[in-house]
Amino acid sequence: MVSPPFPIVTLLTDFGLSDEYVGVIKGLLHKFCPGVQIIDISHTVDPQNSRKAAHLLTRAYPYFPPGTVHLIIVDPGVGSTRKIIAFKTSEQIFVGPDNGLFSMIFKKEEILAIHQVTARHLFLPAPSNTFHGRDIMAPIAARLAGGLPIEQVGPSISVGDCIELPTPQILRDPQQLTGEVTHIDRFGNLCTNISSEEIDVFSEGCGVEINIGPVSISSISRSYSSCNVGQPLALYDSQGLLEIAINCGRFAATHGIKEGEKITVKKNL
Amino acid sequence: MVSPPFPIVTLLTDFGLSDEYVGVIKGLLHKFCPGVQIIDISHTVDPQNSRKAAHLLTRAYPYFPPGTVHLIIVDPGVGSTRKIIAFKTSEQIFVGPDNGLFSMIFKKEEILAIHQVTARHLFLPAPSNTFHGRDIMAPIAARLAGGLPIEQVGPSISVGDCIELPTPQILRDPQQLTGEVTHIDRFGNLCTNISSEEIDVFSEGCGVEINIGPVSISSISRSYSSCNVGQPLALYDSQGLLEIAINCGRFAATHGIKEGEKITVKKNL
Amino acid sequence: MVSPPFPIVTLLTDFGLSDEYVGVIKGLLHKFCPGVQIIDISHTVDPQNSRKAAHLLTRAYPYFPPGTVHLIIVDPGVGSTRKIIAFKTSEQIFVGPDNGLFSMIFKKEEILAIHQVTARHLFLPAPSNTFHGRDIMAPIAARLAGGLPIEQVGPSISVGDCIELPTPQILRDPQQLTGEVTHIDRFGNLCTNISSEEIDVFSEGCGVEINIGPVSISSISRSYSSCNVGQPLALYDSQGLLEIAINCGRFAATHGIKEGEKITVKKNL
Repeated sequence: MVSPPFPIVTLLTDFGLSDEYVGVIKGLLHKFCPGVQIIDISHTVDPQNSRKAAHLLTRAYPYFPPGTVHLIIVDPGVGSTRKIIAFKTSEQIFVGPDNGLFSMIFKKEEILAIHQVTARHLFLPAPSNTFHGRDIMAPIAARLAGGLPIEQVGPSISVGDCIELPTPQILRDPQQLTGEVTHIDRFGNLCTNISSEEIDVFSEGCGVEINIGPVSISSISRSYSSCNVGQPLALYDSQGLLEIAINCGRFAATHGIKEGEKITVKKNL
Repeated sequence: MVSPPFPIVTLLTDFGLSDEYVGVIKGLLHKFCPGVQIIDISHTVDPQNSRKAAHLLTRAYPYFPPGTVHLIIVDPGVGSTRKIIAFKTSEQIFVGPDNGLFSMIFKKEEILAIHQVTARHLFLPAPSNTFHGRDIMAPIAARLAGGLPIEQVGPSISVGDCIELPTPQILRDPQQLTGEVTHIDRFGNLCTNISSEEIDVFSEGCGVEINIGPVSISSISRSYSSCNVGQPLALYDSQGLLEIAINCGRFAATHGIKEGEKITVKKNL
Repeated sequence: MVSPPFPIVTLLTDFGLSDEYVGVIKGLLHKFCPGVQIIDISHTVDPQNSRKAAHLLTRAYPYFPPGTVHLIIVDPGVGSTRKIIAFKTSEQIFVGPDNGLFSMIFKKEEILAIHQVTARHLFLPAPSNTFHGRDIMAPIAARLAGGLPIEQVGPSISVGDCIELPTPQILRDPQQLTGEVTHIDRFGNLCTNISSEEIDVFSEGCGVEINIGPVSISSISRSYSSCNVGQPLALYDSQGLLEIAINCGRFAATHGIKEGEKITVKKNL
């Protein structure tokens, strides 16, 4: 793995922006890795919502430079026996609690090394039982960003030793695909778990009809601007997944859609 | 234009802070411009509100060092035929969609060069139709911050080729000036489009009476602390524009004022 | 005081994240201290709430590297005769308005030098009466981060010349301790001003019963996970202060607790 000219650590937490927690983590990252460049992914994940953190991380990490260390602190089990883990892919390093945060990355990437974080001499002195992000994970992430070999954080484990978070499934009937809304973004757009490949295989070249809540959409558009302002549309998002939106509007609020809602795709015969 | 010792890119978007979008942009800026220093102006502009982004940008850019690149992604027309532009003044560079974001800067600054961004070899591979901020603008802004000559992003155009956003006007009667509330800040203070010069010319040395909603104010104060806590006051803000406030209170919420509301200035005979 | 390899300035303000104010401060910090690394502590302090800013600062500053400059702009008295001060401890520098923000730090740290900021040649030209954070404090903090000797910002004063903010007291009866809720964090956890030492001295080795609002808690847990999900618990937070929480829940919202509410500790005989 190539080191970047400046060490980079990203942060993804459920700390919010009103308390001092994020600032404290950043202070420690600078203390243990002078010159580190810190990038916030998000701090407004709902408290303890590991699934949402996993969603954001999975969509974000491919865009970061080789050598980036991703530190994720959404940690409902802090102070319990849950593990803290650090692992690396061919390009990046990830640090966080073992609660399923990394399930999707384990499926997508080859994991070159994975270790349980146990090296107490690298922690803050007298670590608390309530803030392992500060006392354990930040010092570890900082040192990894600074070049510490990952073997030194603790014993090697395997992906199979880690918690797996179930991911939303696709139900495949001959007549329809059923997926779900995995995320609603700030624009009220609906992210789903149905990929363009999934639809191509299913539709066999026919058109499709998409149903979500009270809305039926009979084609897949090229961009938001492909239909008039205020009209609903379906398109493939920048990850190749089916997205439902209103051009310059907010689909979720307009139609009362929540995360987890089912979405179906039928052949338009 | 002098390059700063560290490249600086500012970000002004309507992405909010809950999704991964801002983090992704920052990852790409670091990827294409190692060592870049990124400064957030704001990410909480209401979705698609180019006018608000223009307001914030116009007030912020003069305070940044020479060589700063400002990247503004408020882009309701993403995927349509709207242009993406990059231009430079004597000190700074600006990149964003051509939707009127830059109208006020075109009026205030001498534009030394302006180009349409078309150089596909500088974009991410296979750019999407839904996220040009990521696929086109971030790589371009990063490379400009790293020293890429602006001529290389695409063909030269002129300011006259760009969308102009109408700016709020002043109505000048012999008896009164009528302006409007252009922004309400976090403190509930009202920003207006009436400058101190405008009032000086109008008042010819007389005092003035200012009316906004149910409130009449008969003098212009030196600072918030010039009147008692809880009292309304008018003063010139740090840009030399008329501002209405309550000392340690929130004028907008107290008096139900919204952006766009009219404000009048009369001579106090 | 050792200088860090990269100058670090932290920011703690009541500016919010929707206006351009924070970005402007950061632009100026980079202008007057090229290469500065800026760390946000928080910008969502309620407007003019110096007490809340003091709370966050006091909990955050120990985690920053030697040489860090902390710039705090919560400044209800801007434009009045209130002083702006800069002071240093053995490791760090602090800059902000003299309104009690620093009272707790004055009690905890040895203050090696404290100066009133008056050196107009270091301010922006023609400083406004409404935004001293921008016109005075940011240029001063940037230059101190860049190595300017603190003596050059203005005359030496003493801690006794500064405003003292009263801190919440503990009421000590033979039968009970009465403290208060000093902060409610994003997780709905209650921070209090009762330290573990205070409870040890009071309880003389007996168990304790803690009462807050409608809830009675009869032991002090080791971590959130020490009781079942949804159960209330008391523990010592990462600062050694009594904290009240619900495991994976939100105590404050569940029981309607506000900041300032009293909390009592009795001996569990």
